Amino acid sequence: ARQSKRTKRAKKASKPCSLREVEVTVSELGLGYYSDETLLFRYCSGNCNASRRNYDLILEKWTRKGISKRERSPCCRPKEYDDISFLDNSNRYQALHEFSALACGCV
Amino acid sequence: ARQSKRTKRAKKASKPCSLREVEVTVSELGLGYYSDETLLFRYCSGNCNASRRNYDLILEKWTRKGISKRERSPCCRPKEYDDISFLDNSNRYQALHEFSALACGCV
Repeated sequence: ARQSKRTKRAKKASKPCSLREVEVTVSELGLGYYSDETLLFRYCSGNCNASRRNYDLILEKWTRKGISKRERSPCCRPKEYDDISFLDNSNRYQALHEFSALACGCV
Repeated sequence: ARQSKRTKRAKKASKPCSLREVEVTVSELGLGYYSDETLLFRYCSGNCNASRRNYDLILEKWTRKGISKRERSPCCRPKEYDDISFLDNSNRYQALHEFSALACGCV
Protein backbone atom coordinates (compact mmCIF):
# COMPACT_ATOMS: atom_id res chain seq x y z
CA ALA A 1 0.00 0.00 0.00
CA ARG A 2 2.83 2.34 0.83
CA GLN A 3 4.48 1.77 -2.55
CA SER A 4 1.27 2.60 -4.38
CA LYS A 5 0.87 5.84 -2.43
CA ARG A 6 4.38 6.90 -3.39
CA THR A 7 3.71 6.17 -7.04
CA LYS A 8 0.56 8.30 -6.96
CA ARG A 9 2.44 11.20 -5.43
CA ALA A 10 5.16 10.99 -8.05
CA LYS A 11 2.59 11.17 -10.83
CA LYS A 12 0.94 14.23 -9.33
CA ALA A 13 4.26 16.03 -9.00
CA SER A 14 4.95 15.66 -12.70
CA LYS A 15 1.99 17.78 -13.86
CA PRO A 16 3.05 21.33 -14.61
CA CYS A 17 1.59 24.37 -12.85
CA SER A 18 -1.86 25.17 -14.21
CA LEU A 19 -5.29 26.55 -13.40
CA ARG A 20 -7.63 23.89 -12.03
CA GLU A 21 -11.25 24.14 -10.99
CA VAL A 22 -13.68 22.50 -8.64
CA GLU A 23 -17.35 23.08 -7.81
CA VAL A 24 -17.99 23.90 -4.17
CA THR A 25 -20.85 25.24 -2.11
CA VAL A 26 -20.20 28.52 -0.30
CA SER A 27 -20.45 26.72 3.05
CA GLU A 28 -17.65 24.37 2.02
CA LEU A 29 -15.26 27.32 1.57
CA GLY A 30 -14.82 27.45 5.33
CA LEU A 31 -14.89 31.26 5.51
CA GLY A 32 -17.90 31.43 7.82
CA TYR A 33 -20.52 32.13 5.14
CA TYR A 34 -23.45 29.79 4.82
CA SER A 35 -25.11 29.33 1.48
CA ASP A 36 -26.09 26.38 -0.63
CA GLU A 37 -25.12 28.28 -3.79
CA THR A 38 -22.54 26.41 -5.83
CA LEU A 39 -19.49 28.32 -7.02
CA LEU A 40 -16.65 27.45 -9.35
CA PHE A 41 -13.47 27.77 -7.35
CA ARG A 42 -10.32 28.00 -9.49
CA TYR A 43 -6.91 27.39 -7.99
CA CYS A 44 -3.28 26.96 -9.05
CA SER A 45 -1.44 23.71 -8.65
CA GLY A 46 1.44 21.80 -10.22
CA ASN A 47 5.20 21.78 -10.45
CA CYS A 48 7.44 24.63 -11.63
CA ASN A 49 10.56 22.66 -12.50
CA ALA A 50 10.74 24.17 -16.00
CA SER A 51 10.86 27.70 -14.56
CA ARG A 52 13.96 27.34 -12.44
CA ARG A 53 16.46 30.20 -12.76
CA ASN A 54 20.11 30.35 -11.68
CA TYR A 55 18.75 31.87 -8.46
CA ASP A 56 16.77 28.68 -7.75
CA LEU A 57 19.64 26.37 -8.69
CA ILE A 58 21.82 28.16 -6.14
CA LEU A 59 19.19 27.99 -3.40
CA GLU A 60 18.53 24.31 -4.10
CA LYS A 61 22.06 23.46 -3.07
CA TRP A 62 22.06 25.97 -0.28
CA THR A 63 22.62 24.40 3.10
CA ARG A 64 22.22 27.60 5.09
CA LYS A 65 19.60 27.33 7.83
CA GLY A 66 16.56 29.55 7.86
CA ILE A 67 15.59 29.21 4.21
CA SER A 68 12.50 27.09 3.90
CA LYS A 69 11.95 24.54 1.17
CA ARG A 70 9.19 26.64 -0.34
CA GLU A 71 11.56 29.55 -0.87
CA ARG A 72 14.07 27.42 -2.76
CA SER A 73 12.10 26.92 -5.97
CA PRO A 74 9.39 28.72 -7.94
CA CYS A 75 5.85 28.57 -6.55
CA CYS A 76 2.76 27.80 -8.59
CA ARG A 77 0.59 30.76 -7.63
CA PRO A 78 -2.20 32.97 -9.03
CA LYS A 79 -1.13 35.90 -11.22
CA GLU A 80 -4.62 37.38 -11.20
CA TYR A 81 -7.58 36.97 -8.91
CA ASP A 82 -11.32 37.04 -9.39
CA ASP A 83 -14.01 38.38 -7.04
CA ILE A 84 -17.30 36.66 -6.46
CA SER A 85 -20.71 37.47 -5.00
CA PHE A 86 -23.48 35.26 -3.73
CA LEU A 87 -26.64 35.23 -1.63
CA ASP A 88 -26.18 33.62 1.76
CA ASN A 89 -28.85 31.48 3.45
CA SER A 90 -30.24 34.59 5.19
CA ASN A 91 -30.73 36.18 1.75
CA ARG A 92 -27.98 38.70 2.32
CA TYR A 93 -25.79 39.66 -0.57
CA GLN A 94 -22.12 38.87 0.13
CA ALA A 95 -19.03 39.71 -1.91
CA LEU A 96 -15.65 38.04 -1.61
CA HIS A 97 -12.61 39.91 -2.88
CA GLU A 98 -9.80 37.91 -4.49
CA PHE A 99 -11.69 34.70 -4.06
CA SER A 100 -10.49 32.59 -6.97
CA ALA A 101 -7.52 32.38 -9.34
CA LEU A 102 -7.91 33.72 -12.89
CA ALA A 103 -4.48 32.80 -14.19
CA CYS A 104 -1.51 30.91 -12.76
CA GLY A 105 2.21 31.18 -13.09
CA CYS A 106 5.49 30.01 -11.61
CA VAL A 107 6.81 32.86 -9.51
CA ALA B 1 16.77 19.64 22.87
CA ARG B 2 13.68 19.07 20.78
CA GLN B 3 11.83 21.90 22.51
CA SER B 4 14.66 24.34 21.85
CA LYS B 5 14.71 23.45 18.15
CA ARG B 6 10.97 24.12 17.89
CA THR B 7 11.35 27.47 19.61
CA LYS B 8 14.06 28.53 17.17
CA ARG B 9 11.91 27.59 14.20
CA ALA B 10 8.97 29.55 15.59
CA LYS B 11 11.13 32.67 15.95
CA LYS B 12 12.39 32.43 12.38
CA ALA B 13 8.89 32.02 11.01
CA SER B 14 7.81 35.31 12.58
CA LYS B 15 10.14 37.50 10.48
CA PRO B 16 8.33 38.90 7.46
CA CYS B 17 9.43 38.29 3.88
CA SER B 18 12.41 40.48 2.99
CA LEU B 19 15.58 40.71 0.94
CA ARG B 20 18.57 39.21 2.74
CA GLU B 21 22.18 39.00 1.69
CA VAL B 22 25.21 36.85 2.23
CA GLU B 23 28.78 36.92 0.91
CA VAL B 24 29.79 33.79 -0.97
CA THR B 25 32.61 32.74 -3.24
CA VAL B 26 31.62 31.72 -6.76
CA SER B 27 32.71 28.15 -6.03
CA GLU B 28 30.30 27.99 -3.09
CA LEU B 29 27.35 28.66 -5.42
CA GLY B 30 27.46 25.04 -6.54
CA LEU B 31 26.83 25.83 -10.21
CA GLY B 32 30.05 24.27 -11.47
CA TYR B 33 32.06 27.52 -11.76
CA TYR B 34 35.31 27.81 -9.87
CA SER B 35 36.50 31.21 -8.73
CA ASP B 36 37.69 32.67 -5.48
CA GLU B 37 35.90 35.92 -6.26
CA THR B 38 33.46 36.90 -3.56
CA LEU B 39 29.95 37.89 -4.58
CA LEU B 40 27.01 39.33 -2.70
CA PHE B 41 24.16 36.87 -3.09
CA ARG B 42 20.75 38.35 -2.26
CA TYR B 43 17.79 36.11 -1.60
CA CYS B 44 14.20 36.29 -0.36
CA SER B 45 13.11 34.74 2.88
CA GLY B 46 10.46 35.18 5.56
CA ASN B 47 6.78 34.67 6.19
CA CYS B 48 3.89 36.06 4.15
CA ASN B 49 1.12 35.78 6.72
CA ALA B 50 0.14 39.43 6.30
CA SER B 51 -0.46 38.94 2.57
CA ARG B 52 -3.08 36.24 2.77
CA ARG B 53 -6.11 36.76 0.54
CA ASN B 54 -9.51 35.08 0.63
CA TYR B 55 -8.01 32.66 -1.91
CA ASP B 56 -5.36 31.57 0.61
CA LEU B 57 -7.82 31.34 3.50
CA ILE B 58 -9.91 28.94 1.42
CA LEU B 59 -6.92 26.80 0.43
CA GLU B 60 -5.65 26.68 4.01
CA LYS B 61 -8.75 24.80 5.06
CA TRP B 62 -8.85 22.77 1.89
CA THR B 63 -8.56 19.06 2.52
CA ARG B 64 -8.52 18.07 -1.14
CA LYS B 65 -5.54 15.91 -2.03
CA GLY B 66 -3.01 17.02 -4.59
CA ILE B 67 -2.55 20.59 -3.40
CA SER B 68 0.80 20.95 -1.76
CA LYS B 69 1.44 23.02 1.34
CA ARG B 70 3.49 25.51 -0.65
CA GLU B 71 0.52 26.27 -2.91
CA ARG B 72 -1.76 27.06 0.03
CA SER B 73 -0.24 30.36 1.09
CA PRO B 74 1.74 33.21 -0.46
CA CYS B 75 5.41 32.54 -1.24
CA CYS B 76 8.26 34.89 -0.40
CA ARG B 77 9.93 35.14 -3.80
CA PRO B 78 11.99 37.57 -5.92
CA LYS B 79 10.04 40.16 -7.92
CA GLU B 80 13.15 41.19 -9.85
CA TYR B 81 16.45 39.49 -10.52
CA ASP B 82 19.99 40.72 -11.00
CA ASP B 83 22.67 39.35 -13.32
CA ILE B 84 26.30 38.99 -12.33
CA SER B 85 29.66 38.50 -14.00
CA PHE B 86 32.98 37.30 -12.66
CA LEU B 87 36.38 35.93 -13.67
CA ASP B 88 36.75 32.23 -13.03
CA ASN B 89 40.01 30.62 -11.86
CA SER B 90 41.03 30.04 -15.51
CA ASN B 91 40.68 33.79 -16.11
CA ARG B 92 37.60 33.34 -18.27
CA TYR B 93 34.84 35.87 -18.05
CA GLN B 94 31.54 34.28 -16.97
CA ALA B 95 28.07 35.80 -16.75
CA LEU B 96 25.17 34.43 -14.77
CA HIS B 97 21.68 35.50 -15.75
CA GLU B 98 19.08 35.96 -12.98
CA PHE B 99 21.60 35.15 -10.32
CA SER B 100 20.42 37.13 -7.34
CA ALA B 101 17.22 38.75 -6.04
CA LEU B 102 16.80 42.52 -6.37
CA ALA B 103 13.43 42.85 -4.64
CA CYS B 104 11.15 40.43 -2.81
CA GLY B 105 7.45 40.09 -2.43
CA CYS B 106 4.72 37.77 -1.25
CA VAL B 107 3.18 36.22 -4.34
